[in-house]
Amino acid sequence: MSGNALPGGFDLAHWSEQRLARIERALAGWVVADAPAGLGEAMRYAVLDGGKRLRPLLVLAACEAVHGNEMAALRAACAVELIHAYSLVHDDMPCMDNDVLRRGKPTVHVKFGQAQALLAGDSLQALAFELLAPDDAAIPAAVQAALCRLLARSAGHAGMAGGQAIDLASVGRTLGEAQLREMHRRKTGSLLQASVMMGVACGGAGARAQAALADYGAALGLAFQVVDDMLDVTADSATLGKTAGKDAAHEKPTYVSVLGLQGSATFARELLDQALKALAASGLPDTRALHALATMVVNRDN
Amino acid sequence: MSGNALPGGFDLAHWSEQRLARIERALAGWVVADAPAGLGEAMRYAVLDGGKRLRPLLVLAACEAVHGNEMAALRAACAVELIHAYSLVHDDMPCMDNDVLRRGKPTVHVKFGQAQALLAGDSLQALAFELLAPDDAAIPAAVQAALCRLLARSAGHAGMAGGQAIDLASVGRTLGEAQLREMHRRKTGSLLQASVMMGVACGGAGARAQAALADYGAALGLAFQVVDDMLDVTADSATLGKTAGKDAAHEKPTYVSVLGLQGSATFARELLDQALKALAASGLPDTRALHALATMVVNRDN
Repeated sequence: MSGNALPGGFDLAHWSEQRLARIERALAGWVVADAPAGLGEAMRYAVLDGGKRLRPLLVLAACEAVHGNEMAALRAACAVELIHAYSLVHDDMPCMDNDVLRRGKPTVHVKFGQAQALLAGDSLQALAFELLAPDDAAIPAAVQAALCRLLARSAGHAGMAGGQAIDLASVGRTLGEAQLREMHRRKTGSLLQASVMMGVACGGAGARAQAALADYGAALGLAFQVVDDMLDVTADSATLGKTAGKDAAHEKPTYVSVLGLQGSATFARELLDQALKALAASGLPDTRALHALATMVVNRDN
Repeated sequence: MSGNALPGGFDLAHWSEQRLARIERALAGWVVADAPAGLGEAMRYAVLDGGKRLRPLLVLAACEAVHGNEMAALRAACAVELIHAYSLVHDDMPCMDNDVLRRGKPTVHVKFGQAQALLAGDSLQALAFELLAPDDAAIPAAVQAALCRLLARSAGHAGMAGGQAIDLASVGRTLGEAQLREMHRRKTGSLLQASVMMGVACGGAGARAQAALADYGAALGLAFQVVDDMLDVTADSATLGKTAGKDAAHEKPTYVSVLGLQGSATFARELLDQALKALAASGLPDTRALHALATMVVNRDN
């Protein structure tokens, strides 16, 4: 996998540091504290001071690769993170995964109650679309509409929420590799791929680059979940910042249960290779950040 | 209240019948049956075969008053109804109002389980924004973006979800008329006003008409809630299609508890008068449907 080597002279930590600072500042500004009756507090708790911000970084990296509108990308980066955050809040609730620990802290419903957690998740989803459609002529309406389209499709029944429904229905059942892939393509892959495509939508990439980056996003999205399944088995809760071993405890089918640990590791490396080949095929001159992010996704330990 | 008389020659039942048929057909087509693992079934159950469709009718009536884009208005009409439907699904859940009856049928979580109800609500919200941002050049991007902006603001923390948070926090407390009005301006009024303004956004109304229709929507939105509070006391569950008397049972502050039944009726008629005066001030040549809808809202018995 020659493409797996980090591109010469590119420092992901340095690149990420500056962008993460912008993302955190923007989130802190846009996720309001003054929403009524404690709702703002619950929303901020769900979003701020936690998370790897992988999806926002993918948006910014893809936007930079196509020289897109930076302000649009920052809004898209925060919007996709709000969708991710809301999905975690709802997913942790007692009627879903009933989880009490997230990013090393009590989950939102443990801290604020179930009703407030439900409303905070609902409000974060609405806020995501609000961020994408500002009353600001500096972001062309066509870009605003395209971003809303991509995010809505990837978050809803055909994407993330649909994948969660399959997940719910699959507890205690045996899934084949194809069914597992379909579940994860929706549940996790959809929003990761949308992050890349939203970055692309901030600029004016040609059809070849668009198709290549869609392939990159699909491979990266699946690789993320394969590695997640592996970490659920191999890492401890302190490293993960969430409850380890919960897939097995909940009798959820995972890549590890279907392919084994070694088979999963091989599959993750194959997916990384696919992602990097897609970048090479994009024809874009500088995809180093996207390259480094995909490599990080596969090699991460939390 | 001279403005309260129905405008001569306008038949609301006839006008509504044709539009309701279009709305139901569109909802049946757009709320997919093929979402995975029972999710589509739960979404359709939450939306189809029920509801007065007041919000969609307001969108279409406002669009017609400004001669707007009909296809955009049909999408907006369905989108706002999906937001309304999702809010009912989540609001009925055990951690919120814990209601088992809605539109004369078991609520979504009773029929499909809490986890599926949570996901169905989340998916309906995403689908609302998906409808507003189609890959369809016949609806200008500026209209798509404006519709997303209006809906997101009215559904989120500054609107409906924020009002529900105030509602949660107010159980067992005494609210003054101003606090009650603020809660309802967000919880119910926001989406009703947005319905009107989304219809307006499908066309090219001037500033005067826009401001007047915003006033109309605000007055109508508040009137709707005042009448709702009255019906909760005066109607039975069979007529309402939902559990009557639940405000008192839940110790929720209402207009009836603050103003009394007679005071509430007087207030509702004042609000209707305000709404109709705003229509007259709009300068638009034909606002008969909006006029008739406001009158219906105040005079309804369910």
